[in-house]
Amino acid sequence: MKALQLTQRGLKLRQDYPVPNPGKEDALIRVAIAGICNTDLQLVDGYMQTQDLVLGHEFTGVVEECPACSGWTGKRVVGEINVGCGVCPDCKRRFFNHCPMRRCLGILNHDGAFAEYISLPVANLHEVPAGMEEQVAVFVEPVAAALRIQEQLSIGPSTRVAVIGDGKLGLLIALTLRDTRCQLNVFGHHERKLGLLAAYGIPVENVTNREREAADREHFAFDVVVECAGSPSAYTMAQSLVRPMGTLVLKSTKAEQKGHLDLNMLVVNEIKIIGSRCGPFGRALSWLEDSVRSGYFPVDGIVDQVMPLTAGEKALEVASQSGALKILLRT
Amino acid sequence: MKALQLTQRGLKLRQDYPVPNPGKEDALIRVAIAGICNTDLQLVDGYMQTQDLVLGHEFTGVVEECPACSGWTGKRVVGEINVGCGVCPDCKRRFFNHCPMRRCLGILNHDGAFAEYISLPVANLHEVPAGMEEQVAVFVEPVAAALRIQEQLSIGPSTRVAVIGDGKLGLLIALTLRDTRCQLNVFGHHERKLGLLAAYGIPVENVTNREREAADREHFAFDVVVECAGSPSAYTMAQSLVRPMGTLVLKSTKAEQKGHLDLNMLVVNEIKIIGSRCGPFGRALSWLEDSVRSGYFPVDGIVDQVMPLTAGEKALEVASQSGALKILLRT
Repeated sequence: MKALQLTQRGLKLRQDYPVPNPGKEDALIRVAIAGICNTDLQLVDGYMQTQDLVLGHEFTGVVEECPACSGWTGKRVVGEINVGCGVCPDCKRRFFNHCPMRRCLGILNHDGAFAEYISLPVANLHEVPAGMEEQVAVFVEPVAAALRIQEQLSIGPSTRVAVIGDGKLGLLIALTLRDTRCQLNVFGHHERKLGLLAAYGIPVENVTNREREAADREHFAFDVVVECAGSPSAYTMAQSLVRPMGTLVLKSTKAEQKGHLDLNMLVVNEIKIIGSRCGPFGRALSWLEDSVRSGYFPVDGIVDQVMPLTAGEKALEVASQSGALKILLRT
Repeated sequence: MKALQLTQRGLKLRQDYPVPNPGKEDALIRVAIAGICNTDLQLVDGYMQTQDLVLGHEFTGVVEECPACSGWTGKRVVGEINVGCGVCPDCKRRFFNHCPMRRCLGILNHDGAFAEYISLPVANLHEVPAGMEEQVAVFVEPVAAALRIQEQLSIGPSTRVAVIGDGKLGLLIALTLRDTRCQLNVFGHHERKLGLLAAYGIPVENVTNREREAADREHFAFDVVVECAGSPSAYTMAQSLVRPMGTLVLKSTKAEQKGHLDLNMLVVNEIKIIGSRCGPFGRALSWLEDSVRSGYFPVDGIVDQVMPLTAGEKALEVASQSGALKILLRT
């Protein structure tokens, strides 16, 4: 099959990659469409030292074979990306996402969805509701990651929340946070992206060349600051915006990001920091269903291009350009 | 009066420093004894850029004048160190410790207790119980800082807690945490200090030259890790010991401490970090009273020397030596 593989020598489209052989608890899934995430770009930049790996962890597809449970065959699915060992204490408590032996679709020791086929345990699958378009379903994984914040923190109408970053994940975080009716402000650099949020009445500010100024003006103004830009200046801004005893949520993983937090400030202002990763797929599916129905998910605005898997190398290049939003790959 | 002042040119004992002139809500306190804290050493090393300042924030003394409330005159007291503006939203909510305009005794814009007299608002004072020795009462401030952790986090018998650092604050944190009946382990470098804890049945480990090994062996073993050593290797160890979705408490403020946290690890393992600073004086007084009564506060072990204020420069030198515990200054 065709697959976009990352090796020590870089990214390469393989024409003859072996179709995965599902284990007895796995399903073989024909990938319909997959999304390019910043994590994919970071992996190409060397964020993790991995073995050779097919990239891609945002996908939707159709179950083609399922030895464990034939009822899944033919169903449209999305899939949770962490595959736990199943026997460790974390897995026993159903914290598969934190199993120390876990594999992770397209990220760690498990070939991913920039390919014609993938294999995933049946336990990871969620059926896509009838009527949900592929281009919407492919957003379940990042929407779940955005919703994870609401599992970790109590956010309500009196909570002042800043989102720093108007990238793909930043937009989804802002859109999902709006449900909490919190006092939301989004700080970004791109008129086009911020415009997508402003159209829904979300207060936005373009801080290009004015981060310092905004940080000074809004000093200590926010109970919760979500950092999803990953740049040094964004960390500086985040630390300036969060009030004493407030919470800073970190969503970015980057190839190089040590040294951007002022630990003295954390202690003196008694800041809480929470790292936040993968989230609830079931809730993300419901959120997308509701949001599309109510015209509240601007899929046309967020998807920049749908490109064929065969143009995968080029697609990752396009996705890495400043200002780019979601690039999808169709197999 | 005599006072130990920090200026741009370093630390200097002043013989002729003006006695503070208390405002109408302040008390003038004759300092009996003051403790040297690592923060004092860090201030000398340039941790904060301050104006000229008399150092010292751990003290006990006697109220000599109190225009606002004559009832305080002659009482033995300890005092909270943060002086809020009294009018900002934080002060209105009684979060004086986080008032953005606050002054802080011996740390920020408020002369401290390495002097014969200090002035503090009456609202900051706590009476020292009859029978509590000065050498015990002077520990109220750091014991309160240790107890702050228990205000910020729920810690109980099922919580696995690691304390990294066997310095002055580390010992107090370990001693106060024992009350929670948590599963406590202390990692340090000094047999003598660790011995003080081991004598109370607290599990300790001397990790000199074996931090890496201990971190590997106890990888992910702790729900809560309290970092109070402030060295790069301690941060590395802390991040290794804390389990996914666990909590890392930061207690150290240092002149140089950027760059010691792996932010990717925070995100991937969804670690929570909490900065922790000043704590509850009332609770600290009770804790010290109970602990001395039950023979559970090894004051003789923790206090290395009581030196005269006139030897203050030398005393800070002694306090900064590796392995030193508490040095007290008597006025």
